Amino acid sequence: MQRTFALTIAYDGTEYAGWQVQPDQPTIQGTLQLATRQATGQKVTVTGSGRTDAGVHALGQVASLRMPAWKADETALMRAINSRLPDTIVVKRVDAADDDFHAIRDAQGKRYRYQLQVRGQRDPFEHRYRWRVRQHVDIEAMKQAAAMVIGHRDFSSFESTGAKRKTSVRDVRDCQVIVEDDYERNGHLAIEVEADGFLYNMVRNITGTLVEVGFGKHPASWVEEVLSLKNRIYAGQTAPPQGLFLKEVYYLPGFAATIESK
Amino acid sequence: MQRTFALTIAYDGTEYAGWQVQPDQPTIQGTLQLATRQATGQKVTVTGSGRTDAGVHALGQVASLRMPAWKADETALMRAINSRLPDTIVVKRVDAADDDFHAIRDAQGKRYRYQLQVRGQRDPFEHRYRWRVRQHVDIEAMKQAAAMVIGHRDFSSFESTGAKRKTSVRDVRDCQVIVEDDYERNGHLAIEVEADGFLYNMVRNITGTLVEVGFGKHPASWVEEVLSLKNRIYAGQTAPPQGLFLKEVYYLPGFAATIESK
Repeated sequence: MQRTFALTIAYDGTEYAGWQVQPDQPTIQGTLQLATRQATGQKVTVTGSGRTDAGVHALGQVASLRMPAWKADETALMRAINSRLPDTIVVKRVDAADDDFHAIRDAQGKRYRYQLQVRGQRDPFEHRYRWRVRQHVDIEAMKQAAAMVIGHRDFSSFESTGAKRKTSVRDVRDCQVIVEDDYERNGHLAIEVEADGFLYNMVRNITGTLVEVGFGKHPASWVEEVLSLKNRIYAGQTAPPQGLFLKEVYYLPGFAATIESK
Repeated sequence: MQRTFALTIAYDGTEYAGWQVQPDQPTIQGTLQLATRQATGQKVTVTGSGRTDAGVHALGQVASLRMPAWKADETALMRAINSRLPDTIVVKRVDAADDDFHAIRDAQGKRYRYQLQVRGQRDPFEHRYRWRVRQHVDIEAMKQAAAMVIGHRDFSSFESTGAKRKTSVRDVRDCQVIVEDDYERNGHLAIEVEADGFLYNMVRNITGTLVEVGFGKHPASWVEEVLSLKNRIYAGQTAPPQGLFLKEVYYLPGFAATIESK
């Protein structure tokens, strides 16, 4: 009997060419599919809630998996797959899902986290997970700018070319600048953005724009101006991939339990 | 004019064959010497306070460096070397030192940190920096056992073969089991040991022994017994390298300022 599962997955994307299977390159999806085949003997497709780019990480990516046959329970499936995965990828949980559960179509929203290191020296233990910016940032100005990103509107100005969506209108539910506990000592700062869906490079473009406000290149109100111009060329630079984490993906109860990452 | 400097260095040892130069293998010392030569045009030897093994990290390794000629200041030297180093190694500070400063001979003591993850799943962001142990540990028993390690005594039972020292007597000044803030959630635990000097694999052997006490295989008092037998075969297993960090090296004021790492 065919069964459908929802997998919650964390990964360090540093050494992968992104989520999606590519010929002759290590990818998260390809590695998961190979591990599942080795563990279960079944050739499957693991469908992620969205692609992540090369170097981007996940704390709680969600993927749907349809298995032609699996007689044991979800925990056994999770352990079997994990036993074949490298240290850089882990299946954190497996939930039984409705037959027609689809990780992309059914996603109600997502939350991303972008990690920064403000000033200070290169940190050998953080360079895979943070963007180091060299100048002081005005956190209050960044917080004001972040508040302007929230809302149901056209985010064309934060959409990179390369994967055009049908519409550029999204509902950004939250956009926070988070001063981490060790900010005074290590300059660790994070930006979290939650929306019903995201355009290509949207979080990295929002981050680059908020950082320019932080540097004092523009006032916080510039974000409103950038948004109203609906053109990518007016926004800040695209922040590099290594600071970005897909943190959570939300689903309605009934498809699969809303899944929380750490 | 020849000048002597004390370098404080942090590194992620994952992809290195340890501190010491080896033919045809990437090492921390070799990488530092190459970067210094590229930055200054001078062929130098960087002498570390001690070797670290393959996979072992440092937050505050100290090395002495004698330069035939360097006309700029310490900050310029630090920047020049850092500009040639990979992301996995950073020179955190450079101090001018007395002509006869020697990072090994003048070290008054060192502090190591060993990081554990107790139970829980594989963590893609921590596997390079922690030893994951599968069973519950009794932290109170580990703390009692750690207290027994402190003192001026013969530590033969915690000395691996391979790099015999003249004497196995050391003065362990501190040995702490540290419950990290996120212990409840992620099982993060650390052991820190400070001594005037260390025998080969000493911290990894102490850690393996304290963990066996934590598992309940032996009572805390067993550590006293192990020490009194003065033979490595009685102690616990050697903990793996990736959890170990050389945290600080201490010097008398006058040679080089006592150097504190983050």
